[in-house]
Amino acid sequence: MNEFAARPVIVDCDPGHDDALALLLAVGDPRLRLLGVTTVAGNQTLPRTTANALKILARAGATDVPVAAGCARPLVGELRVAEDIHGASGLDGPDLEGPTGEVADVPAVELMRRLIEHSAEPVTLIATGPLTNVALLLRSHPGVTANLRRIIFMGGSTERGNTTPYAEFNIVTDPEAADIVLRSGLPTTMIGLNVTHRALATDEIIAEFRAMPTRLGAVCADLLTFFAGTYRREFGFAHPPVHDPIAVAAAIAPPTITTTRAAVAVELTGTHTRGATVVDLHRRTGAVLRTDVAVDLDVDAFWRLLMTAVRTLGGPPDPAQPARGSGGAI
Amino acid sequence: MNEFAARPVIVDCDPGHDDALALLLAVGDPRLRLLGVTTVAGNQTLPRTTANALKILARAGATDVPVAAGCARPLVGELRVAEDIHGASGLDGPDLEGPTGEVADVPAVELMRRLIEHSAEPVTLIATGPLTNVALLLRSHPGVTANLRRIIFMGGSTERGNTTPYAEFNIVTDPEAADIVLRSGLPTTMIGLNVTHRALATDEIIAEFRAMPTRLGAVCADLLTFFAGTYRREFGFAHPPVHDPIAVAAAIAPPTITTTRAAVAVELTGTHTRGATVVDLHRRTGAVLRTDVAVDLDVDAFWRLLMTAVRTLGGPPDPAQPARGSGGAI
Amino acid sequence: MNEFAARPVIVDCDPGHDDALALLLAVGDPRLRLLGVTTVAGNQTLPRTTANALKILARAGATDVPVAAGCARPLVGELRVAEDIHGASGLDGPDLEGPTGEVADVPAVELMRRLIEHSAEPVTLIATGPLTNVALLLRSHPGVTANLRRIIFMGGSTERGNTTPYAEFNIVTDPEAADIVLRSGLPTTMIGLNVTHRALATDEIIAEFRAMPTRLGAVCADLLTFFAGTYRREFGFAHPPVHDPIAVAAAIAPPTITTTRAAVAVELTGTHTRGATVVDLHRRTGAVLRTDVAVDLDVDAFWRLLMTAVRTLGGPPDPAQPARGSGGAI
Amino acid sequence: MNEFAARPVIVDCDPGHDDALALLLAVGDPRLRLLGVTTVAGNQTLPRTTANALKILARAGATDVPVAAGCARPLVGELRVAEDIHGASGLDGPDLEGPTGEVADVPAVELMRRLIEHSAEPVTLIATGPLTNVALLLRSHPGVTANLRRIIFMGGSTERGNTTPYAEFNIVTDPEAADIVLRSGLPTTMIGLNVTHRALATDEIIAEFRAMPTRLGAVCADLLTFFAGTYRREFGFAHPPVHDPIAVAAAIAPPTITTTRAAVAVELTGTHTRGATVVDLHRRTGAVLRTDVAVDLDVDAFWRLLMTAVRTLGGPPDPAQPARGSGGAI
Repeated sequence: MNEFAARPVIVDCDPGHDDALALLLAVGDPRLRLLGVTTVAGNQTLPRTTANALKILARAGATDVPVAAGCARPLVGELRVAEDIHGASGLDGPDLEGPTGEVADVPAVELMRRLIEHSAEPVTLIATGPLTNVALLLRSHPGVTANLRRIIFMGGSTERGNTTPYAEFNIVTDPEAADIVLRSGLPTTMIGLNVTHRALATDEIIAEFRAMPTRLGAVCADLLTFFAGTYRREFGFAHPPVHDPIAVAAAIAPPTITTTRAAVAVELTGTHTRGATVVDLHRRTGAVLRTDVAVDLDVDAFWRLLMTAVRTLGGPPDPAQPARGSGGAI
Repeated sequence: MNEFAARPVIVDCDPGHDDALALLLAVGDPRLRLLGVTTVAGNQTLPRTTANALKILARAGATDVPVAAGCARPLVGELRVAEDIHGASGLDGPDLEGPTGEVADVPAVELMRRLIEHSAEPVTLIATGPLTNVALLLRSHPGVTANLRRIIFMGGSTERGNTTPYAEFNIVTDPEAADIVLRSGLPTTMIGLNVTHRALATDEIIAEFRAMPTRLGAVCADLLTFFAGTYRREFGFAHPPVHDPIAVAAAIAPPTITTTRAAVAVELTGTHTRGATVVDLHRRTGAVLRTDVAVDLDVDAFWRLLMTAVRTLGGPPDPAQPARGSGGAI
Repeated sequence: MNEFAARPVIVDCDPGHDDALALLLAVGDPRLRLLGVTTVAGNQTLPRTTANALKILARAGATDVPVAAGCARPLVGELRVAEDIHGASGLDGPDLEGPTGEVADVPAVELMRRLIEHSAEPVTLIATGPLTNVALLLRSHPGVTANLRRIIFMGGSTERGNTTPYAEFNIVTDPEAADIVLRSGLPTTMIGLNVTHRALATDEIIAEFRAMPTRLGAVCADLLTFFAGTYRREFGFAHPPVHDPIAVAAAIAPPTITTTRAAVAVELTGTHTRGATVVDLHRRTGAVLRTDVAVDLDVDAFWRLLMTAVRTLGGPPDPAQPARGSGGAI
Repeated sequence: MNEFAARPVIVDCDPGHDDALALLLAVGDPRLRLLGVTTVAGNQTLPRTTANALKILARAGATDVPVAAGCARPLVGELRVAEDIHGASGLDGPDLEGPTGEVADVPAVELMRRLIEHSAEPVTLIATGPLTNVALLLRSHPGVTANLRRIIFMGGSTERGNTTPYAEFNIVTDPEAADIVLRSGLPTTMIGLNVTHRALATDEIIAEFRAMPTRLGAVCADLLTFFAGTYRREFGFAHPPVHDPIAVAAAIAPPTITTTRAAVAVELTGTHTRGATVVDLHRRTGAVLRTDVAVDLDVDAFWRLLMTAVRTLGGPPDPAQPARGSGGAI
């Protein structure tokens, strides 16, 4: 496959166990070209999510992908990290020590701006953390929308939430940012808990990662084993859902998700529901249908996609493989 | 069965197709003793819901059950009736003309107070409409709680709503009233859409009502046929859910519903979520667990219960049967 | 003056130092006929405000005025009394021991209903506490509005509040009740802090009460002296404002207040502003102008009114004076 | 006076009549050194406020001050300009045609960042429009706070508002931005309507501007004459208040304003009060006192300050005067 036929994407993330898998999919799938990675506070503090992004990219052999640190806190309100789910490092479980690349000397919003403006074709922005960086980009540089193909975000739910009864973690962490993105007029795809809760890392799935003859397979198995423990303890789940890589999968054709066009409002003011994504599936409110909301997932196809990417990355280095990312071109 | 062993109940309702079935179950099941019926604005205006309650009781041969009209509007905000679902009369479909009983000359809250205070044993209050009357009763006569066994209400959801994405009709019509009931300290049972959407009146169910050799069976079939039409048109449901009689069924032993104890907050202030029942199933908020929330339904047992009651009522009058209701005793 | 020419009023109150003065004005001014007094929780708990109303009426020689206890808590939310302002009894300061009348055996709402329905001419309802009872009356017995002339309430402000920066105590204690009253369609008069803060009980005022040759003058002086102390400590006021009797004065002709017709909304949902009365003086919102909002006060005329009433009540009993109130007629 | 002793300031504005006067004061007072001007949407759209800033600086002979355009809309919600107050151009009234400087090729946030980071001494940021740009700066480049001396903003009120009963235009246009600024931990000074409504441009004031023997005096007189007309029509003011230059005056010693330290919350969620600045003057809420809130103004001193600046600018060019602003140094 010709690298230049691959779809250019930026991943904005807060690794995070499932963000880590999302990065591996973005690096490893040949139909995507990962221009850069930006980090945001969410699952853990910004220094930790940034360090985690660098570690995962290094383990994936993608140190040429530029990484920039973004916003250390939500637009409004205080940051509450998900240490109960992701541990003190934000990526507890595997041993990820070793040399990594370096963080860029420009902020996330500036890296995003440059990558988008310099891209020969419209960029797909995949967000797997709170949408703070993306919202700042849209307000600081509204001109970038001309070269943005779509924003795909993991966040929200058409049904129940996980942080509060009706709010999901990424959205409730920065509801105003989500509101800015959803009202932006750009094509958006919402990957909510209603589909991510179907992608459960069963014992068989974890065993399959562990059986891979590569270091990266073991890293994935370790990540999922830790994640399984916290989901069992906090939510009583038998197997942990793997949210974020589904947002990356949604950028890859053929699709593994099914979507419906719907009006999505973010509740900014509720006493008990702040951060809920209010999805008008039955078109009762009369609001404009602006978002493609994921309503179904081909679970098997999704796991094949992710495992193939991890297998590819974990194989012996191929000296003939062209460098991923836009490298020093920016 | 001894009448005096039957559990005394009051039904507060806004008929409404499914309220009508709820009344039939309350009249017809021998384990319940229907002390009185109070009406509230909701599915239609107060004059219409009151007239509908009288008509259904008359068709059920229960003209001795006192009926009092209650609040014509919610505590706060304006009334919006569900004419799209229940038609102009609130009970479109069957022909219900004919003589009826008369409405009491005291308001609903006063009838409830008298019935509760005069009851030899604690009363179960079953509410199948907005909770306006019940809230007024609790604030006007807090002493009645001493002889209230439990409040069972049809309303809310642990998942999605029906009037807005997260709000169910009865609760969103009067959220403050629901808040008053849920914070009252009384035992409460919430019968939400999450279970009522499992009690679907399939073609087979409707046919079974129609096949009964009584006028009342045809009335039920006509009610459900009309209801099926509006649910198909408004929500795309293949078969209409039958909400309210499940609240009556919840007062009958052995139980047809399964409940879990949970904290339930009513969203009073959201821009897009006002009236949502925020049920903390995963105990993430630390709020006190005060409500028994229905989470499962034995669908077959429920339909058997309802059909048996309708069959009983529709049979030839039994001269030996004691009068239902407390009659002129109040 | 002919008693039957006097305007029939009911005072709904939560005494409270300034409520006590309001009661004295309602009893003592010959242009008013006090049909009854109802009490509500607010400045103190319901048992205390009820006891205080009975004590003040007894000291004023008005034990024939029926007193009924109303709502012990707001419609929504929890009660927070103003012990910092009114002391542990709700009426700290004077010695008010001695025999009193008895509380009626019907709730406040029922007493109000009867008095209003039996009155030969439309009744003016004066509320000097949270509007819980009045709201319950309007929702429980909407028919009474036919014989209600006007509701005058002390509460709110066109400017700053006293309990929070923008909310006044009576309204913030039960914002939903205030909303119900203001949207009722009845003529309403709002006596807010913007005018009551002009009626300051200066040292000269207090001295004038103290110099009266009656027990009641000393009671008033003691009340105001205690009130002066708490207002100095809590708000840094040099002299305490006397809120509630201005609402009674507003029922007496010729008027001591100036009003303007305006739209008044009660903020029910703000994080920092719940209970604020949002008065659209500049008609910027387009809302309907339904309330007569007091914007000025003839301070001297007001004090003359109040002092004359207290002097009248404190004088030697006049055997020829007809009984006040409607007595046993209800 | 040595230019290098002058206090470095940036003015972020949305001219706007009173913003124009604020710019003249910032340019003309020798105790301030205007590093740059940034514009924001508010009184009018961004293209118009930017054009207006360039026009006023040109008329003031300050084309060397860099001007950058910022955010074209609030963080959350839609822009509603104040055309009723400032006219279709945002600066209706005077003839301001003629050559102007050019807008910088970097966004406002980037210009602010550079000016602040390059300044030898801490910069005072004066905001006279919605706080969108300032909030974006704080979230995009949190490091700039190290070299920010203080943020002085015209906005809010301790009493009533002007756009809604409790909300002032600048704050209600972007309440989330104001929240970000007020919670930033930086020293902030709030210049609210409670003081700006004391700086009324009386006929004598306008006449004094008109009598100046310079073009700029006539421009000021024309601005104020137009402003007087809209304030008379919209608010019934006899004379228009001059808000924004008071924020500039607050950066000049000796002070013309008196402040008190208070907790200021921005209402983000109210139905009728969104955008209200809730100033806890009586320290009733227990919130942290973080803002210096203007509570009094030396009106005469303020007008002398403004008139002196305008006179200075309007005089014959002084060839010996050093260039204002940081010019090409950035």
